[in-house]
Amino acid sequence: MTTTELLTRAKAASVALAICPTETKNRALAAMADALTGAAPRILRANDEDVCAARSTLSEVMIDRLRLNEARLSAMADGIRALINLHDPVGEPLDEHVRADGLRIRRVRVPLGVVGIIYESRPNVTSDAAALCFKSGNACVLKCGKEAARTSRAIVDALRDALAPFALSDAVCILEDNTRRGAEELMHATGLLDALIPRGGAGLIRACVEGATVPCIETGTGICHIYVDREADLSVARSIVNNAKTSRPSVCNAAEVCLVHRAVADTFLPMLKQVLCDERQAQGLPPVELRTDAYAHAIIGGTAASEEDFDTEFLDYILAVRVVDGLSGAIDHIRRHSTHHSEAIVTRDRARAARFTDEVDSAAVYVNASTRFTDGGEFGLGCEIGISTQKLHARGPMGLCALTSYKYIIEGDGHIRT
Amino acid sequence: MTTTELLTRAKAASVALAICPTETKNRALAAMADALTGAAPRILRANDEDVCAARSTLSEVMIDRLRLNEARLSAMADGIRALINLHDPVGEPLDEHVRADGLRIRRVRVPLGVVGIIYESRPNVTSDAAALCFKSGNACVLKCGKEAARTSRAIVDALRDALAPFALSDAVCILEDNTRRGAEELMHATGLLDALIPRGGAGLIRACVEGATVPCIETGTGICHIYVDREADLSVARSIVNNAKTSRPSVCNAAEVCLVHRAVADTFLPMLKQVLCDERQAQGLPPVELRTDAYAHAIIGGTAASEEDFDTEFLDYILAVRVVDGLSGAIDHIRRHSTHHSEAIVTRDRARAARFTDEVDSAAVYVNASTRFTDGGEFGLGCEIGISTQKLHARGPMGLCALTSYKYIIEGDGHIRT
Repeated sequence: MTTTELLTRAKAASVALAICPTETKNRALAAMADALTGAAPRILRANDEDVCAARSTLSEVMIDRLRLNEARLSAMADGIRALINLHDPVGEPLDEHVRADGLRIRRVRVPLGVVGIIYESRPNVTSDAAALCFKSGNACVLKCGKEAARTSRAIVDALRDALAPFALSDAVCILEDNTRRGAEELMHATGLLDALIPRGGAGLIRACVEGATVPCIETGTGICHIYVDREADLSVARSIVNNAKTSRPSVCNAAEVCLVHRAVADTFLPMLKQVLCDERQAQGLPPVELRTDAYAHAIIGGTAASEEDFDTEFLDYILAVRVVDGLSGAIDHIRRHSTHHSEAIVTRDRARAARFTDEVDSAAVYVNASTRFTDGGEFGLGCEIGISTQKLHARGPMGLCALTSYKYIIEGDGHIRT
Repeated sequence: MTTTELLTRAKAASVALAICPTETKNRALAAMADALTGAAPRILRANDEDVCAARSTLSEVMIDRLRLNEARLSAMADGIRALINLHDPVGEPLDEHVRADGLRIRRVRVPLGVVGIIYESRPNVTSDAAALCFKSGNACVLKCGKEAARTSRAIVDALRDALAPFALSDAVCILEDNTRRGAEELMHATGLLDALIPRGGAGLIRACVEGATVPCIETGTGICHIYVDREADLSVARSIVNNAKTSRPSVCNAAEVCLVHRAVADTFLPMLKQVLCDERQAQGLPPVELRTDAYAHAIIGGTAASEEDFDTEFLDYILAVRVVDGLSGAIDHIRRHSTHHSEAIVTRDRARAARFTDEVDSAAVYVNASTRFTDGGEFGLGCEIGISTQKLHARGPMGLCALTSYKYIIEGDGHIRT
């Protein structure tokens, strides 16, 4: 089937799904979850083939991302089931007013329609994205990386089988062409694709955002900053930076840069080195490599930071450290280097915190808390399809509502405009 | 000044404007309005030069769009003043929750930042767009058509002069390069432009939507349908089609296509011809050219419609007419031909109306009312920067709220993620 044929089928399914009652969608989600575990032998066999084929080309970390087992598959099924209890945003009335002339104007939440997801090799994205789109009334068209082709296809087959009794199989589609050409076709499917959401590394996201002629949402890249203010509780600061850097360095809400007010640098930087390097080493954990600017280097050593280190999403046990002249210097640095994902200030001074939250232009701005909380689950959205780092449409973790639009419904009794 | 320099200045101004109190913005808007009328001699002289230069290349209609006079300038100033009383969306709290662990997560409305507007030769867009962006806390960078270059520059000069005492002149910028190259630079100003809104003809909008690598909102094109149902009050239908087609045919919310249920075609089509053609001719008004499908042609004649006529935004006294088999046929035709702007059903049957509003996927869906109401003023938004025909971010008339985003502000007392 060509990509256009596939998209046309998805569009037709999206029309039926858009007006499908919540209760029916929930029954279908339960069937999708069951189908995943039911098809476990077939899915795991397909995954084995993908893993074998990828051995020669992918790193061990990437192989691990690609690999499925019973437990992971079961977690994916549970992820689908968790959506059943979430509020269905479709059909929700947003606002309404009746004009003096009796014309009634109201706004109602509707699905986007057909959502394209371009991603890489994580198999769980296949079921997560399909289920999130489904619950929010959208058909999805998936395009996975070629390394995960057999696995994703097997997952999609199971989900489509589960949707067959509801006559909604085409609400979950996957491109046959898993090369770059397939991605290009999605990026240019004007009129057939209502939104495109890339999920993956910075290169993939940039290619989609810059290449797409359909509406696209920039997600994910996080060069997150933590600013330790002159007025910080330094033991709180140490704990927050440690958590934000080391609890899961490979994710986008991990901190990559620590900015330290000059007035506390002499005290705080040795504390930072101790918790990120010395203590971890003593515990047999990988120490964090500190890439320090000249001022910090004079205090705690480390690797001399290049300017590029302040524009890099390390996704690793590496932290760039810079000493700044004050709050203005911190805000200015963030303005020039941030990817507008998550930034934090550690301070006990409320006025300084307010200036930071006012002036820092990122999806999530923290006071005295770790950037690691930027996540749909932690924010109470239940789940997320990605984290938007742009300002149009949605910002930060995108839950079910971010997969909807609205329409105006206007009712009159022969009203004409004079 | 290069476009990048200009954008960098606008970005800096946007930071100050984003936290500017409503009261200050309102005083600045009053000053902007006064400056427009104060600079009338200079602006009208510049406009005279533009009009003279354009005489050889533009049609009389386009010349009229370009021409300013005291009355039009005064209306532009009033348009700015009207914004003073509108609610300022910036800073509005959207939602908030405190987690069991005490972490406080709230969402606050913020401006987009720097908004680019690419438009053609209507001078009022210059002041409208600048003032709308300003009230919603955004700096704007304008790119007008070269025919209006002197006029737009004079208007922008007046607005910037008015903003100088507020140190906010750079919140209103206009590209020096008013060629296609200038537009291209805006379309690719990644990191400097938060949103791009094209305003103008279908060609301009398509070029922006397809070419832009910055987030862009598709606006405007309206192939609006009116479906006259089997259960319609036919005199209401006649009045609505007449209003939607003839009250202002050059605008995007004017009807371009009338779909008629076969069961009422014999009765309704002659009524339609009478009001749109015969009566108008008798009154010395331009009659509407009816482009009829074979079925309608057999009843009322007219010009035989080509398939293309059902995909054309005429913006003129032309109406494509098709007889459909029923409600499903009407919905299906709209699905295949609509630009997702505004569509209407005329019917007395509530269930049929509900099916139409459920299944028609357009920004504004009408029951027994003219499509001509799709307009920020009519919808109670006070004003609009354009009418979105896409589903991401905003749909339908875009008022001040559509020029905002939000940020999450998260406050803890040392919270880390476990």
